[in-house]
Amino acid sequence: MLIGGIEAGGTKFVCAVGDESGEIFDKVSFPTRNPDETLADAKQFFDQYVIEALGVGTFGPVDLNKQSDTYGSILLTPKMKWRNYPLLSRLQDDYSVPVYLDTDVNAACLGEYKYGAGRNVNSCLYITVGTGIGAGLVQNGTVFQGKNHSEMGHIFVQKHVDDPFAGSCPSHGACIEGLASGPAIEQRYGKKGTELVDNEEVWKLAAYYLAQAIVNYFVILSPEKIILGGGVMKQKKLYPMIRGEFMKQLNGYLDVGNVDDIIVAPELKDEQGVKGAILLGMVNEKQVSNF
Amino acid sequence: MLIGGIEAGGTKFVCAVGDESGEIFDKVSFPTRNPDETLADAKQFFDQYVIEALGVGTFGPVDLNKQSDTYGSILLTPKMKWRNYPLLSRLQDDYSVPVYLDTDVNAACLGEYKYGAGRNVNSCLYITVGTGIGAGLVQNGTVFQGKNHSEMGHIFVQKHVDDPFAGSCPSHGACIEGLASGPAIEQRYGKKGTELVDNEEVWKLAAYYLAQAIVNYFVILSPEKIILGGGVMKQKKLYPMIRGEFMKQLNGYLDVGNVDDIIVAPELKDEQGVKGAILLGMVNEKQVSNF
Ligand SMILES: Nc1ncnc2c1ncn2[C@@H]1O[C@H](COP(=O)(O)OP(=O)(O)O)[C@@H](O)[C@H]1O
Ligand SMILES: Nc1ncnc2c1ncn2[C@@H]1O[C@H](COP(=O)(O)OP(=O)(O)O)[C@@H](O)[C@H]1O
Ligand SMILES: [Zn+2]
Ligand SMILES: [Zn+2]
Repeated sequence: MLIGGIEAGGTKFVCAVGDESGEIFDKVSFPTRNPDETLADAKQFFDQYVIEALGVGTFGPVDLNKQSDTYGSILLTPKMKWRNYPLLSRLQDDYSVPVYLDTDVNAACLGEYKYGAGRNVNSCLYITVGTGIGAGLVQNGTVFQGKNHSEMGHIFVQKHVDDPFAGSCPSHGACIEGLASGPAIEQRYGKKGTELVDNEEVWKLAAYYLAQAIVNYFVILSPEKIILGGGVMKQKKLYPMIRGEFMKQLNGYLDVGNVDDIIVAPELKDEQGVKGAILLGMVNEKQVSNF
Repeated sequence: MLIGGIEAGGTKFVCAVGDESGEIFDKVSFPTRNPDETLADAKQFFDQYVIEALGVGTFGPVDLNKQSDTYGSILLTPKMKWRNYPLLSRLQDDYSVPVYLDTDVNAACLGEYKYGAGRNVNSCLYITVGTGIGAGLVQNGTVFQGKNHSEMGHIFVQKHVDDPFAGSCPSHGACIEGLASGPAIEQRYGKKGTELVDNEEVWKLAAYYLAQAIVNYFVILSPEKIILGGGVMKQKKLYPMIRGEFMKQLNGYLDVGNVDDIIVAPELKDEQGVKGAILLGMVNEKQVSNF
């Protein structure tokens, strides 16, 4: 059974066809432009194949509340041409197979849960620290969702006493995305993260904030594993720093076991998103029993 | 069908028998002492009735991980006689019917979800602001649980710039429980909340912190309703203050609808816990389809 998957990112789209084994048979990637052009490229790729379902992990915010009139539409994105765009119904028009939509981070979480760093646990949280901060939770093969999807990058945390930066989030200033995303680091120091590699203070502060966010997610959601991905996490030294800060801040309150097994890197390189998108097509077809 | 319910609180136990209608036929309450004495009182009450299952909402932390060797035991409570006490297996020995265990806040959430302020929604979060701060989430009739239960009172939030108080949580200092619980308020001002009724600053600061915690829960869990109970919330003026702060802090980032419908008071007076405990017995007997 061939399933199509789209990782619909704000910068680029990745389209692939694969099956339940997790293997990808063909894959293409192109920049995200306006909806018509971008979705035409996707159609051209998938028209080469006979797929039985299409799963899509999209940038957001997106309306995933099935009771809502605008279910499946992109919401208040800064990308004006995509704002209020009815992505799901457009895809349903373009393709004659069932289409299943979720967020990019939820798809990535599903990919890592099934094939990657979460494959031996019952629940995992996937956090991306990149242009934004976002996270998705999978429990027993099912993506967690409330009334709408989570927006985990916009939680508040304690400011570091020595950090005068007001934060970069246009809505909240110093939410975790406003304090520790790639653009937040760039605004605080006036240089890109890649130019700050040797500045220990930069990564200590980032680890301090990210560990706090992880404590908050951990005590609220109690996942078995926490997988940290995204551009900022390319600074590999962040992993041990975050683990140390996490244990320090949690301060023995909960028994976490070995933190090296809890806070980990992704294992699917850059394919968790598109593999997860393919899984979205399968999960919804065949339900959770597959997991 | 008669079901037994126990609200096993740190200060008092409430035991009741009831049925699926939500009616309570008999109820008794007594102080929490050591396990033997306390559980003997419970047994004496239930021995008057023929119950078909027993549901228990207990103080914590408690091990609810079914894979764990100590499943059903109380964990690191400051009440030494209850520390590591195998509550579930003791109850299973005492009663010949199935026993279902969850936390006190999860039980209370289930009670409000089914019969109270959450009865018309698909998901609700119940937060108690009392001696501690805790919360439980119910979605579509099912209590949310990760590897173990949530410990939502121990999230970090931004300190108010004018608040020098280091926080009262023995583990974290300024987590939300350490900043806004009853004992936190008492430690900050050197007086009980009930003696501070007319001091506007006290409640403004409490509302500032509680609203932040609610923003964090809201963006992570996306519940339809947030029900705030517990001793501190007896200060009714906190409700509008928290709603206002919540909207200010969220700052239009998500469309929440009418906040007066989202952040609300409990409706079951002091019976959400024990009614929820009775439901725990029923949910596990007859599954979620009842809801
Ligand atoms: N090696 C690196 N070290 C630190 N920061 C990086 C690195 N590579 C990328 N970033 C930062 O990560 C962000 C991009 O994140 P990424 O996950 O690649 O994309 P996106 O979040 O847009 O999908 C940028 O802000 C960039 O500055
Ligand atoms: N009317 C009130 N105003 C403010 N605080 C109160 C009020 N009543 C109780 N409290 C505070 O609430 C806490 C007790 O919370 P409660 O929910 O009644 O019990 P518990 O959390 O122990 O189950 C105490 O710290 C007390 O000071
Ligand atoms: Zn924000
Ligand atoms: Zn704490």
